[in-house]
Amino acid sequence: MTGSTDNKPLHFNLFNNGSGHHEASWRLPGSYPTANLDVEYFEKMAQLAESVMFDSVFLADHVSLDGASRRPSGRIDPLTLLTAVARATSRIGLIATASTSYNDPFNVARRFASLDLISGGRVGWNIVTTPGDASARNFGLDSQPSHFERYQRAEEFVSVAEKLWDSWEDDAVIADPEAGVWADESKIHTIDHRGRFFSVRGPLNLPRSPQGHPVLVQAGSSDDGKEFAARHAEAVFTAQHTLADGQAFYADLKRRIKLAGRDPDGVKILPGIVPVIGSTEAEAAALDARLDELILAESGRDRLAKQLSLDPARLPLDEPLPDDLPTEDDIEGDKSRFTLIVELALREKLTVRELVGRLGSGRGHRTFAGTPEQVADMIEQWAREGAADGFNIMPATLPSGFELFVEHVVPILRSRGLIRTKYEGTTLREHYGLPRPRSQYAAARAASAE
Amino acid sequence: MTGSTDNKPLHFNLFNNGSGHHEASWRLPGSYPTANLDVEYFEKMAQLAESVMFDSVFLADHVSLDGASRRPSGRIDPLTLLTAVARATSRIGLIATASTSYNDPFNVARRFASLDLISGGRVGWNIVTTPGDASARNFGLDSQPSHFERYQRAEEFVSVAEKLWDSWEDDAVIADPEAGVWADESKIHTIDHRGRFFSVRGPLNLPRSPQGHPVLVQAGSSDDGKEFAARHAEAVFTAQHTLADGQAFYADLKRRIKLAGRDPDGVKILPGIVPVIGSTEAEAAALDARLDELILAESGRDRLAKQLSLDPARLPLDEPLPDDLPTEDDIEGDKSRFTLIVELALREKLTVRELVGRLGSGRGHRTFAGTPEQVADMIEQWAREGAADGFNIMPATLPSGFELFVEHVVPILRSRGLIRTKYEGTTLREHYGLPRPRSQYAAARAASAE
Repeated sequence: MTGSTDNKPLHFNLFNNGSGHHEASWRLPGSYPTANLDVEYFEKMAQLAESVMFDSVFLADHVSLDGASRRPSGRIDPLTLLTAVARATSRIGLIATASTSYNDPFNVARRFASLDLISGGRVGWNIVTTPGDASARNFGLDSQPSHFERYQRAEEFVSVAEKLWDSWEDDAVIADPEAGVWADESKIHTIDHRGRFFSVRGPLNLPRSPQGHPVLVQAGSSDDGKEFAARHAEAVFTAQHTLADGQAFYADLKRRIKLAGRDPDGVKILPGIVPVIGSTEAEAAALDARLDELILAESGRDRLAKQLSLDPARLPLDEPLPDDLPTEDDIEGDKSRFTLIVELALREKLTVRELVGRLGSGRGHRTFAGTPEQVADMIEQWAREGAADGFNIMPATLPSGFELFVEHVVPILRSRGLIRTKYEGTTLREHYGLPRPRSQYAAARAASAE
Repeated sequence: MTGSTDNKPLHFNLFNNGSGHHEASWRLPGSYPTANLDVEYFEKMAQLAESVMFDSVFLADHVSLDGASRRPSGRIDPLTLLTAVARATSRIGLIATASTSYNDPFNVARRFASLDLISGGRVGWNIVTTPGDASARNFGLDSQPSHFERYQRAEEFVSVAEKLWDSWEDDAVIADPEAGVWADESKIHTIDHRGRFFSVRGPLNLPRSPQGHPVLVQAGSSDDGKEFAARHAEAVFTAQHTLADGQAFYADLKRRIKLAGRDPDGVKILPGIVPVIGSTEAEAAALDARLDELILAESGRDRLAKQLSLDPARLPLDEPLPDDLPTEDDIEGDKSRFTLIVELALREKLTVRELVGRLGSGRGHRTFAGTPEQVADMIEQWAREGAADGFNIMPATLPSGFELFVEHVVPILRSRGLIRTKYEGTTLREHYGLPRPRSQYAAARAASAE
């Protein structure tokens, strides 16, 4: 596998969740248990990722608190945090999660346009519908809307946001003091949207941003999620355990994109990988084992029960999952996470304790303990064999795991031509090789003038 | 007036709206017509304000676009922009406007807590109810809720936000890796709010921020607004044309604060002043006149018509306001701005054109053209004679007007003991001399333990 010459650079994203993606990473000696609350830490990690030409950094989000006693909890608002990161960096993309279920499209469209402007065109929006009753209860509801309903709302939400981002044509601002003309109002459009979920007149109260609109990112892998991605996404984060699963997902999604009438190359598929790096295989395995020992099985079991819509009492730690599980159709929360968990448990015949350990070591993503060479081999194999356009790097431990990745894995990737050696463009859209979208209103005007 | 010795430092805020508070300032030679869209410009102006120990910088907001053709338009989301400013400064307070009518309390509470954390305790929230049908139409409504209704919602909104900010006690985070305990959940509280406008379970998904909660700022001067301020505000921005008006407002509000059972010294009253500075009186008057010449009367008249709820055709430029004006009770938009405008026109017997000129030169705030000495005299007089605890500085031209203020007015203020010479504290709350609020849940726990 080493030294292949017909590679092209892949896309790399750092998913920074604070103290690491293994849920026990904060308990290791030398860890940083309150990293999730430290703006300077996020700035420094983004600078490190930028120093090795990563495409982007990414922040996930929740709008509720799910038990703070046993692991680092609390999240700075992602767009707010990435605004600080934007001013501490100059090239790297900045992908923030925001919910379509618990926001208004005007506010979300405006905030992303604001950060796109501030960052010089580096922002991406990870579009989530936010599963869970706990979130719904912070926004006036007693329980979450159904999975289907949330995706219906997301569909309309994105369409409204796109209209708002297009509402100023690119050349609307004139700013001519002598003539006393600041903007050409014939190039600023109300959107007059009236739909099932939203009525929004527009226009947005900001000129069109450097990227036209943020890069649209999506991460759910349910059928609804994949259809949504096929219609809207420009990058997709996904959790795939095995090469075969990754290949199947990749082929399926690219097919759906084509069926939706879009260019499959215009959507970058980025599986998550959770590297546990050692200078020898034995060292990596020892770190992996040490991390798993530090998992607090009871609190992991409680979380698992929620994900499976079961009473925790039905999940004794040293027995397999019960036979009478719900099906994906019964789940109104995160359907793809549910299926991934159940398939993992059945495929590998895991007890609840073992399953909690596997999930705790990377929350369903591909965990990989090995030497830097082995990590690079895995990356190359997945890319060459049709499972990935790039990777969402989710180090088991942070900051140490990413520092090791930069120091030891990146040079190998570079020698194999698998990571860029300089930024060609300045925007996230350019890093991904995506076109800048034209304003739909400018396009309509051009069409009517023909 | 010069050289008084029994002064104490006043509070100063820079209200940065981009290219200046005189509406024609962007048309002057050497102006910066797209300042409103430049993050580095806002950072530099905040650094300048910090260099002379201002308490804070402030950003207003609208959530609609009100005609972009004739003056700089479009606003970067204030909290997003102030996050960048936070990382470019270290001491100055950061006051962002956010609407209680077109947001959810969970999102707003979280974003302010996020910036309070990022800035080390420097954030303030200018609470607005957002008048105008144009805004309502961007959020699913056909017209604005009534003034009364908006204030009812604001009241409940702030109460929910305060509960969320209090939902983690200050010592809830333990972060003990060896024990595997990250937080003491007995010190993290659901808020279980169920009210007329909102149902929010909580807790917030962030620990309590450095200031406990942001400094609460209010700016409406209607009866509803003043009552709201008396109950909640810790600083008040206000537009007062004359010393007598300023004194009456100051006395009235301090009285209402006392009646509401709060300490009048715990609420800082900061009238807006729009300085037009010249090295001689004649130079200041010439700049003032030049600015007024550059006003575009027709576009000002259109805006005036909206503020008065009249058809623009009823406002010929060279006639006085019509006799059959609506009353403040009829206005559902900005009641205090309506009354201020009408009183100004009647008191000074202005034609519509003259009125548009006066409003364009500072939107109803106290405009003052003079030498640095005269500006300092006015500031000292208002403070000594019971009209102000400090000032909201709204330079007619920006950046030039603020640069002149810093270079020429601040040294005079300093020589008179009217502005601090160093920051004593690190938080906005400390700059204002306000106590850090205790979590209501911690207080309840302490009370029940007695």
